[in-house]
Amino acid sequence: MSRLDLSVTDDEAAPQGPLRRVMLLLAYDGSEFHGFAAQPGAGLQTVGGSLGAALTRMTGHEVAVTCAGRTDSGVHAAGQVAHVDLSEEFLGGRPDLDPLIRSLNRQLGPALAVLDARLAPEGFDARHSATGRRYRYLILVSTTPDPLLLHTSWHRPPPLELGAMRIAADALVGEHDFAAFCRRPPRYDGPLTRRVLRAGLSVQPDGRLWSFEIEANAFCHRMVRSIVGTLVSVGEGRLTAADMVSILRAGDRSRGGRLAPAGGLTLVSVSYPEELVPGGVWRPAG
Amino acid sequence: MSRLDLSVTDDEAAPQGPLRRVMLLLAYDGSEFHGFAAQPGAGLQTVGGSLGAALTRMTGHEVAVTCAGRTDSGVHAAGQVAHVDLSEEFLGGRPDLDPLIRSLNRQLGPALAVLDARLAPEGFDARHSATGRRYRYLILVSTTPDPLLLHTSWHRPPPLELGAMRIAADALVGEHDFAAFCRRPPRYDGPLTRRVLRAGLSVQPDGRLWSFEIEANAFCHRMVRSIVGTLVSVGEGRLTAADMVSILRAGDRSRGGRLAPAGGLTLVSVSYPEELVPGGVWRPAG
Repeated sequence: MSRLDLSVTDDEAAPQGPLRRVMLLLAYDGSEFHGFAAQPGAGLQTVGGSLGAALTRMTGHEVAVTCAGRTDSGVHAAGQVAHVDLSEEFLGGRPDLDPLIRSLNRQLGPALAVLDARLAPEGFDARHSATGRRYRYLILVSTTPDPLLLHTSWHRPPPLELGAMRIAADALVGEHDFAAFCRRPPRYDGPLTRRVLRAGLSVQPDGRLWSFEIEANAFCHRMVRSIVGTLVSVGEGRLTAADMVSILRAGDRSRGGRLAPAGGLTLVSVSYPEELVPGGVWRPAG
Repeated sequence: MSRLDLSVTDDEAAPQGPLRRVMLLLAYDGSEFHGFAAQPGAGLQTVGGSLGAALTRMTGHEVAVTCAGRTDSGVHAAGQVAHVDLSEEFLGGRPDLDPLIRSLNRQLGPALAVLDARLAPEGFDARHSATGRRYRYLILVSTTPDPLLLHTSWHRPPPLELGAMRIAADALVGEHDFAAFCRRPPRYDGPLTRRVLRAGLSVQPDGRLWSFEIEANAFCHRMVRSIVGTLVSVGEGRLTAADMVSILRAGDRSRGGRLAPAGGLTLVSVSYPEELVPGGVWRPAG
């Protein structure tokens, strides 16, 4: 075999032969990563970059990772869904992906876990097939900080007006142009229409941890954190629930609240059509 | 003023003049510290060392920190109690310690929080006055790991027999020689008698997080982690609940289970006589 032949099995090589799409269920501690999207050459650890690099090493061909929700730096996931295209030669035709899961988890380290893996059904795309995303944002409402919740919640001193925040959250449900709560993509002037299926605040039994859950067909960039920042302003009395409605209608980002910090936010789960994912939501086995 | 005079106000100087004892309520993320006890010269960050160094800088005299429960490396606290003796000159006679709390929290960083501070009543000693300590140990019972619970729970795959573990936990209640579950202090051959007031396992609503809570007058070194390791062996069927009783009675450490990892353990609260701490337990204001 000549040197030239060897070069096509280099780590960076394009895959040779047929590919099979594999879907992955992921959980990660976002505080250990600079977001999901791979940033080649930037020297930053990202979720997609780490996963792609491990699979590239294992398969001998370049592997790109596509996910349902591109979480920002510091944002966590409990049920992120991604897909990768792996050579059939590597997969060896076996339906049991447990050895792949174990091997990935050994390489990736404890901040990123592959919870499950499946051969994807025909036509599945982790991002474009997804019909819904559910996020949770935790607010620690307490006079004192909690070092153990530092990376997973936003600490706000009481009082926060729960009733007013709930009325404001209700106003989000339905189809709206969320321009007021989005970082607008470059070179795009159109509407940022998203359909919010549910949005609500629950308070955990000890009264300290408030959980804001929101599900929508899709989210634009920084939408949940902008919404939470504004909801907290409503809770603090600096805005009213009616202001939330008028900010949403006016599409004026400058009138919203602060951007809530990334650490409070977790991508909980992703929904797909029943024919692609039985039950509609892929959850860890438990 | 001569150079010699200046040296007595050096950071390391003994306090001049009368002292007032101040009690501190602390919470910390143990994964950021090499335990509580200061380790001078070892170059390791400890809870007591960090706190003592900050107070030494602020007061200009050496400050030692005494705590109720000397947590090991990796063990967390939600309601640790400590005392320090500060010069009256520094305290300036003011009963309001809020500026001291704020200043300490600015210096200590987010992994260690001073939740509250009070002037101590006559005769108070954080360690010797304490009549009880309550610890919680979290076990994540799940086929899949959870990166967000990595530093605060012990991940064990199901099944674990909850009923057998509860029977074994019940056997701990009462006054026993806990030699089987303690790292024996050097040069001490006597009994390691402790009085366990309550010990029980509860399962959080999602079924994944099991919380073992134990309260005793005092604990010997590594007692909770040894007990949890043995309880998990009972849950796994490698020991029976009856074995727990015979291990306890025989005082034979070699027959117990593994030592459970430090990260699952949190010192929840410390109890004191009512006349020293109104209500018996000092809790954060909430």
